[in-house]
Amino acid sequence: MQQIADFQHAAAMLEWDQEVYMPKRGAQQRARQLSTLATAAHELATSSQLGQLLQDLAGQGSLTPTEKSNVLLSLEDYNKHSKLPSSFVSKLSMQTSVCYNAWLEARNSNDFKVFAPHLADMVALKLQQAQYFGYEQHPYDALLNEYEKGATVQMLDPIFQGLKEQLPALLQQIVAKPQVDNQCLLQHFPKQQQWDFSIQVLQDMGYDFEAGRQDYAAHPFTTSFGSQDVRITTRVDEHDFASLFWSTVHEGGHALYEQGLPAEQYGLPLGVATSLGIHESQSRLWENNIARGLNFWKHYFPKLQQIFPKQLGDCSLQQFYNALNKVAPSFIRTEADELTYHFHVMIRYEVEKAILSQSVAASDMQQLWNDSYSKYLGIRPEHDNQGILQDVHWSHGSFGYFPTYSLGSFYAVQLINQARLDINNLDEQVESGTFGALKTWLQQNVHQYGRQYTSNELCKRITGSPLDVTHFIRYATDKYGAIYNF
Amino acid sequence: MQQIADFQHAAAMLEWDQEVYMPKRGAQQRARQLSTLATAAHELATSSQLGQLLQDLAGQGSLTPTEKSNVLLSLEDYNKHSKLPSSFVSKLSMQTSVCYNAWLEARNSNDFKVFAPHLADMVALKLQQAQYFGYEQHPYDALLNEYEKGATVQMLDPIFQGLKEQLPALLQQIVAKPQVDNQCLLQHFPKQQQWDFSIQVLQDMGYDFEAGRQDYAAHPFTTSFGSQDVRITTRVDEHDFASLFWSTVHEGGHALYEQGLPAEQYGLPLGVATSLGIHESQSRLWENNIARGLNFWKHYFPKLQQIFPKQLGDCSLQQFYNALNKVAPSFIRTEADELTYHFHVMIRYEVEKAILSQSVAASDMQQLWNDSYSKYLGIRPEHDNQGILQDVHWSHGSFGYFPTYSLGSFYAVQLINQARLDINNLDEQVESGTFGALKTWLQQNVHQYGRQYTSNELCKRITGSPLDVTHFIRYATDKYGAIYNF
Repeated sequence: MQQIADFQHAAAMLEWDQEVYMPKRGAQQRARQLSTLATAAHELATSSQLGQLLQDLAGQGSLTPTEKSNVLLSLEDYNKHSKLPSSFVSKLSMQTSVCYNAWLEARNSNDFKVFAPHLADMVALKLQQAQYFGYEQHPYDALLNEYEKGATVQMLDPIFQGLKEQLPALLQQIVAKPQVDNQCLLQHFPKQQQWDFSIQVLQDMGYDFEAGRQDYAAHPFTTSFGSQDVRITTRVDEHDFASLFWSTVHEGGHALYEQGLPAEQYGLPLGVATSLGIHESQSRLWENNIARGLNFWKHYFPKLQQIFPKQLGDCSLQQFYNALNKVAPSFIRTEADELTYHFHVMIRYEVEKAILSQSVAASDMQQLWNDSYSKYLGIRPEHDNQGILQDVHWSHGSFGYFPTYSLGSFYAVQLINQARLDINNLDEQVESGTFGALKTWLQQNVHQYGRQYTSNELCKRITGSPLDVTHFIRYATDKYGAIYNF
Repeated sequence: MQQIADFQHAAAMLEWDQEVYMPKRGAQQRARQLSTLATAAHELATSSQLGQLLQDLAGQGSLTPTEKSNVLLSLEDYNKHSKLPSSFVSKLSMQTSVCYNAWLEARNSNDFKVFAPHLADMVALKLQQAQYFGYEQHPYDALLNEYEKGATVQMLDPIFQGLKEQLPALLQQIVAKPQVDNQCLLQHFPKQQQWDFSIQVLQDMGYDFEAGRQDYAAHPFTTSFGSQDVRITTRVDEHDFASLFWSTVHEGGHALYEQGLPAEQYGLPLGVATSLGIHESQSRLWENNIARGLNFWKHYFPKLQQIFPKQLGDCSLQQFYNALNKVAPSFIRTEADELTYHFHVMIRYEVEKAILSQSVAASDMQQLWNDSYSKYLGIRPEHDNQGILQDVHWSHGSFGYFPTYSLGSFYAVQLINQARLDINNLDEQVESGTFGALKTWLQQNVHQYGRQYTSNELCKRITGSPLDVTHFIRYATDKYGAIYNF
C-alpha cells in the first residue's frame, strides 16, 4: 500500500512541477514518465497478490480497530477496482483522451456540436461503469460514490430541492435592492504586496511552511506528497485583489486538511481524506465562513490599508466587506459569488441526472443547460464557451463530481456552527486574527480520521445530525440580509 | 528500457526538488519515495525477461547499426549487473548508508579516525565488487570502468606521470613571480545582477531555456529528465563574483551535452552520455577554455563594467582576466584554480591506487594524504576537514570517480584545439560572444553519439589521436607564462 502511495506521490510531484516550473519542451517526456508511474501504481493496486493478502488479513481476529478499518477499506477499494475488466479500463482511458481533445477543439471553435458525439460515447461508457460497480436505485449513485462515498440521488434530491425552494427568492430580494459597489477591489495592487499578505494570512491560519510551500500556477490547486509536504499554488491579477487572495485561502483550507492527516498512516486509507465534499468543506470554511466574514476583516482590513494606503485609505471596513460579498448572477461557475455559485452546481446536477437517466440525449444537453440558466439565474449564455463548454470535468468522464462543490459549502456552515458552540469566543478569536483553536478543532474532529468515517458519519459524529442544508440557507439569509438591508 | 528511464528520471525530478524547493519536513517521505523508484528501476534492469529479450535481439541479423549498438551496450550493462549477487548489492547499499553517516560524524568531530574503520569495510566491499566484475591487471581497473569505460591504471599512470614531471616545475615558476591581485572579484556584487548576467551568458552559449531552467541550490549540479528538460543549479556569494559565474558556466557545459543527446534515443544507451570524463570535458571546455579566456572577456568585460560600474569601472580587462586566473596552492579541491586542481586529483588517484592494491591500510590513508599535499603543493593540512575528510565520494563507495575530473580537463583542451582547426575564426567568434558554431561542433562531434563510442574512441575519431596530456601541459604553460611573465 505504501509503495502504491510512493508511485502516486511521485506522480503528483511530476504534475506539480509541470504546472509550476517545467520548461515548455519537457511536456512530451513528462507525459510518458507520468504514464509509467500510473501504470506501476495501478498494477500494484490491482494485483491478485494484494487481493489475497487483504482477504487473509480481513479474516484475522487479532487486528486493532485501526488496522481493521485500514484492511476493510483497502479490501473494499480492491474489490471495486476488480469489478472493472482491464479491457474496459483501457477503453475508458482512451475515450478520456479523445474526449478531452474534442473538448479543447470545441472550446477553440466555441461550438458544443464538436464535443457532443464524443460526450455521448463517454456517457455510454460511464453508464457501463455504473453497471460494473452496481447500484440500488440510480446509475448516477454508482458514479457519485466515486467522489462522495454514500452520496445518492435519494440523498441529494432533497438537498437541491431545498435550495430550489429558497435560493431564488433570496436572490430576488438581493437583486431588488441597491447593488454593492466593488470598485475598491479592482484597483492596481502590486503583485509582491499581494503575495506577502497572502503568506501572512496562511501563517496565521496555521499552514506549516516547513511542510509545504506556495508557488504560482495558472490554475490554483493543492497537492500532497505525504502529509509532511503539502503544497498550494495561487495566481495573481494586479487589477483584482480578490483573485490571489481567495485562491490562497481556499487552497490553504485544503492544505490544512492534508497536513492534518496522520503521517503514520501514510499510504493507508486512514491517511487519506475521506471525500471530495469534506475536502471542499475545509477550503470553503476558511474561504467563506472565515475570510469572507466581517470579523476577519476587523483584524486584517487595517493591516491591508497600511499595505495599500493609496488604494484603500478612503475605503471603510463595511464598504470593503460588502465589496467582497457582492452578489450578481453570472455565467462562469468558478467566478461566481458565494451564493449564486450553488445555482451553477444545481444546474449541473440536474443535467447529469437527466443524461444518466437517459431522459435527455447528449446532443440536447446544451438546450437544457441554457434553459436552466434562464430559469434559475435569469441570464442565458450567448455562446457555448460561456455555457456548457466552460468546465473540463465531463471531458474527463467526471460525472458526479460537481455536487461535491456544493456539499462542501453546506458541510462547512454546519461545521462552523458546531465549532462556535464548542470553542469559547471563536468569533472574538477571529476578530483578533487568532485561528489556533479552530485549526485544532478541525484537526481533531475531521482531519485526524482520514477515511475512517464517511462524510455523513463524520457530520453526525460532530454535529449530531446528518447534512442539513437549512444551516446554509439560514446563514446566507442572515449574511445577505445584513449586507443588502432586508 | 524506456520504463527504466522513466523511473530514473522521475527519481531525478524528486531529487532536484529536494535540493531546490522541498520544505524541510518533506525529507522522510521523500526518501522512501526515492527508494521505491530506485527499486522499480533496478528490478526492471535486472529482470531475467530483459536479459532474454536482449540475448534474442543480439542474435538477430536484421538490426540497423544504431539498433545493434543499443542492443549490445544494453546487454553489456545487463551482464555486468548480473555479475553482482543481489545479497552483495544490498550489503553494498547498506554499507554506503553506514559509511556516509560515519563520514558526516567524522566531519562533525573533524577526526578521520571516526571514519577509518567504516572506510576499511567499504574498501573490502569494493575489492569484492572488482572481483565480481573481473579485471585483467589491477582491481582498480574494474572500478574505474564504472565511470570511464576503458580507463585503466595502465592508461592513467602515464598521464599522471606526465603531470608529475611537468606541473610542479610550472607551479614553481608561477610562485616565484609577483602574485596576481584578485581583490577586484571580492567586492560586493548584488545577487540579482549576478543572476541576470549568468542568464545572459547561458543564452549566448546556446542553452535552451525552453528545455531547461536555472535555480539556486546549495551545491551546483546538472540534472536531466530527458533531453527536453535539462536543469542546472547555481549558488551565489555576493562577495565573490567567481562563485555563481563559474558554477553557471560549468553546469551550462554539462547541460549542453544533455540537451544535445538525441531525444529519439530516450532510455537507450545511445541517448545517454558516454562517460564522466567526456561529461566533464564539456563543462571544463566552457568553463576553462572559453570563459576563463581573454577573448571571452574582450566581449563580456565591458558589459560587466556597465552592470557593476562602481566595482569594476577602474579595473582593466587585463587585471580582471588575471584575477580570474590567479594560481595558488590551497587545501580544498572544489575551490582550487584551473592548474593546481590537478594536484588534488593526482593525490586522490595515488591514494586510491594504493588502497586498492592493499599496499596501504585505510587507517594510514590520512598520513599518505597529508604527505602528498606537502610534497606536491608545499602545504600540509592542519586538520582532517581541510584534508582527507573534504570529499564525500569515498563514503559513497565511489572509487575511480576522481580521475575523471582531470581527464575532463585534458579532453577539453584536446577538443578545443581541434575545434580551432575545424571552425574558421573560432577565437574571433568568441571575442564577439558568438558560440553557435562551437555549440554545433560539439553537438555533431560529441553529443549526438550518446554511448556509441567510448571516451578514447571519441577522442581518436575527433582529433586523430587518443588522449594526450601534452595538449594540456602546453596550454597551461602558454597561458600562465603570459599571465605571470615567464
